[in-house]
Amino acid sequence: MSNPTAAMLVIGDEILSGRTRDANMHHLAGELTRVGIDLKEVRVVSDDPGAIVAAVSALSGSFDMVFTSGGIGPTHDDITADNVAAAFDVPIDVRADARALLQAHYKRTGLELNAARLRMARIPEGATLIDNPISIAPGFSIENVHVMAGVPAIFEAMLANVLPSLTGGAPLLSKSLQINRGEGDIAGPLAELAARYKDLSIGSYPFYHGGAYGSNIVIRGADAARVNAAMAELEKMFPT
Amino acid sequence: MSNPTAAMLVIGDEILSGRTRDANMHHLAGELTRVGIDLKEVRVVSDDPGAIVAAVSALSGSFDMVFTSGGIGPTHDDITADNVAAAFDVPIDVRADARALLQAHYKRTGLELNAARLRMARIPEGATLIDNPISIAPGFSIENVHVMAGVPAIFEAMLANVLPSLTGGAPLLSKSLQINRGEGDIAGPLAELAARYKDLSIGSYPFYHGGAYGSNIVIRGADAARVNAAMAELEKMFPT
Repeated sequence: MSNPTAAMLVIGDEILSGRTRDANMHHLAGELTRVGIDLKEVRVVSDDPGAIVAAVSALSGSFDMVFTSGGIGPTHDDITADNVAAAFDVPIDVRADARALLQAHYKRTGLELNAARLRMARIPEGATLIDNPISIAPGFSIENVHVMAGVPAIFEAMLANVLPSLTGGAPLLSKSLQINRGEGDIAGPLAELAARYKDLSIGSYPFYHGGAYGSNIVIRGADAARVNAAMAELEKMFPT
Repeated sequence: MSNPTAAMLVIGDEILSGRTRDANMHHLAGELTRVGIDLKEVRVVSDDPGAIVAAVSALSGSFDMVFTSGGIGPTHDDITADNVAAAFDVPIDVRADARALLQAHYKRTGLELNAARLRMARIPEGATLIDNPISIAPGFSIENVHVMAGVPAIFEAMLANVLPSLTGGAPLLSKSLQINRGEGDIAGPLAELAARYKDLSIGSYPFYHGGAYGSNIVIRGADAARVNAAMAELEKMFPT
């Protein structure tokens, strides 16, 4: 049985302009791999209603689950919640439970729950809240889409709260070997190995540091005995 | 007149599994912004023929130009060139000029131009080669798609060779202000400012460090006088 599939949607002009380097993709990829969910595609789109609606529709229809990052704060450019609602054609408004969370939080901290902050209680109809232990304003899950904040510390905390509710498959076992030879030297034997172990994923990831070429070979599969057998053959082919 | 639009397609299981952190997106985003080309979307897909063909077709049809990263080396999992050819429905084979480049390079370095390395001379019909000063095996441009290597040093060198041939628009001017207050405090006045400067892009990028909230406000536009005027108002609203 194959693992559940996932996609990620990163929303934010700041990443597309080169101002900010996305950190959430790498974190999500590692966490999903750990629990046996296969991340199959990532899209980064700008703060544009049409782009967000199209991407949410396409990805939620093509994969078992979707994780979004960014655009759920209080400012005018935070338009993710409204456009996720539009993608599923459901109404969106300030919801009592989300509002109560914010009210209690801002009462505690002495800040005003103004109109801008209240926008963060806008939740599409039928969604489930995702707990935010850091800044309280919640994320939400609707259908198979999990909507989370872009600030890395908050994204990571929300993801930690969502992951236990998801059913993963068999975590892939992974072994890797660094070979200090160019890919062109090792590609022939490596292709033969891959052909004999079609049940495994054998990837070659070249690097180039200070004038020297090398490759990291990664062997992945659910069956430990097969992964170990392929790695033993690889080590014999290319002794270090 | 609006700027030309671009998309990026990153090809590689190693990024989706969390093994490797992509570096090329951030580099491309910065370079395109510098020359006045608007990066509108990024997709990351796995080493899967169907996924690559679908993404190349969708992105090349929707944007003025597309840049791809990864999957053009000599190993069995390097399938980008073949699938870009498939997306444009053109034949692909070893091409004489690309083969001559590799032959000269490997003769110089004393390595064998074996079958695996020769795969790197497979170029779709009608493409133009992109020079690779580092490891010689070329990238290529076909229609509006520029196909480049995934190793960051080589991606950057290929991009530097492609960029001068592209026509950019007006580089956006950008000014930013760090405000050490939570977004909820500043969102109201900021939205009013954005409404009065609809010709500019005004983004708010929150951060959270060590228990303190703040925002970086970035004002972007092609007209320096307007950008400066909006920034002067912003500084007056939120004196540091």
